[in-house]
Amino acid sequence: MARWEPNARERLASSALDLFAERGYEGTTAAEIAARAGLAKSTFFRHFADKREVLFAGQDLIGEAFAAAMRACPPSATPRELLHAALAAAAFAFGDERRAWVVRRQAVIDDNTELRERELLKRASLTAALESALRERGLGERLAALAAEVGSLAFRGAFARWIAPSNARGYAELAREELDALASAAASLG
Amino acid sequence: MARWEPNARERLASSALDLFAERGYEGTTAAEIAARAGLAKSTFFRHFADKREVLFAGQDLIGEAFAAAMRACPPSATPRELLHAALAAAAFAFGDERRAWVVRRQAVIDDNTELRERELLKRASLTAALESALRERGLGERLAALAAEVGSLAFRGAFARWIAPSNARGYAELAREELDALASAAASLG
Repeated sequence: MARWEPNARERLASSALDLFAERGYEGTTAAEIAARAGLAKSTFFRHFADKREVLFAGQDLIGEAFAAAMRACPPSATPRELLHAALAAAAFAFGDERRAWVVRRQAVIDDNTELRERELLKRASLTAALESALRERGLGERLAALAAEVGSLAFRGAFARWIAPSNARGYAELAREELDALASAAASLG
Repeated sequence: MARWEPNARERLASSALDLFAERGYEGTTAAEIAARAGLAKSTFFRHFADKREVLFAGQDLIGEAFAAAMRACPPSATPRELLHAALAAAAFAFGDERRAWVVRRQAVIDDNTELRERELLKRASLTAALESALRERGLGERLAALAAEVGSLAFRGAFARWIAPSNARGYAELAREELDALASAAASLG
């Protein structure tokens, strides 16, 4: 019979981060991550396909939030308004109380080639989620692909600014600013 | 003493493609690829870090061609002119005589998750090569990142159209058209 495992994903992610920081990514196994979280190894693999996935648990939720926010926009929304709504909807993942964790997580990722590759693949998935939601909203193929890349760049730019040591501003405000700045830059290419 | 191994990279890539198509990617080893090409296994690993790399031998050359072309542009070149020059410089890889091979290669990649992931990572490297060359040309951080994504999208779009069964047009012309269309779309986001 399965044990009751409240917040198993979060506990596993948090234990993984501790162990990666202590022993390095290569020196840590999925079994050790589960043990540190007080969970069985089988529980780990019920939640994550492999060790690389454990730090990216939240990314699918962000992609879903992007898409849901765009679906909720009025029919009159412009591509830029759709992107603003999408980026704003990811704010749940970037509250002040999560900042220290996100900063530690990023340092571990930046330090390991395999995790950096996984991050690039997750980034491509997020961009694809944006593109697919923009297509659903009736944008043509080329504009949807382009707007998705712009949204993705704005998201990464806002994220990078949000985790910077000197930053005191909120993610939502930074995302809005990044997107507007990128849209202006885009206009200069036309 | 090392044997003389003319065109070892091309021969290995060609043998790999044959074997991947015959036996599948998973069912083929680096040693078998080398044997088919009439080369030693050690020769394979002198040219490629692993089995996944063998189909992506040309990508670094394309990144270098992008950068060299931008460096050769006059100081007055606009971001869009820099991108046009970069994309045009990749035409060496997409001559008519290479089309059948490129089409077969793409079918093998599309059919395998691991190769698709590798392709996404190579795509990110190409975008980074564009971005870095645009920064060298004095573009600001945000505009360089954006223009690199636009260039990368135009490159992928031109490539997809070039390998389409119904296509009779050349890569260079398609790349020019894609970039202009994307730049117009970009303007509409501003």
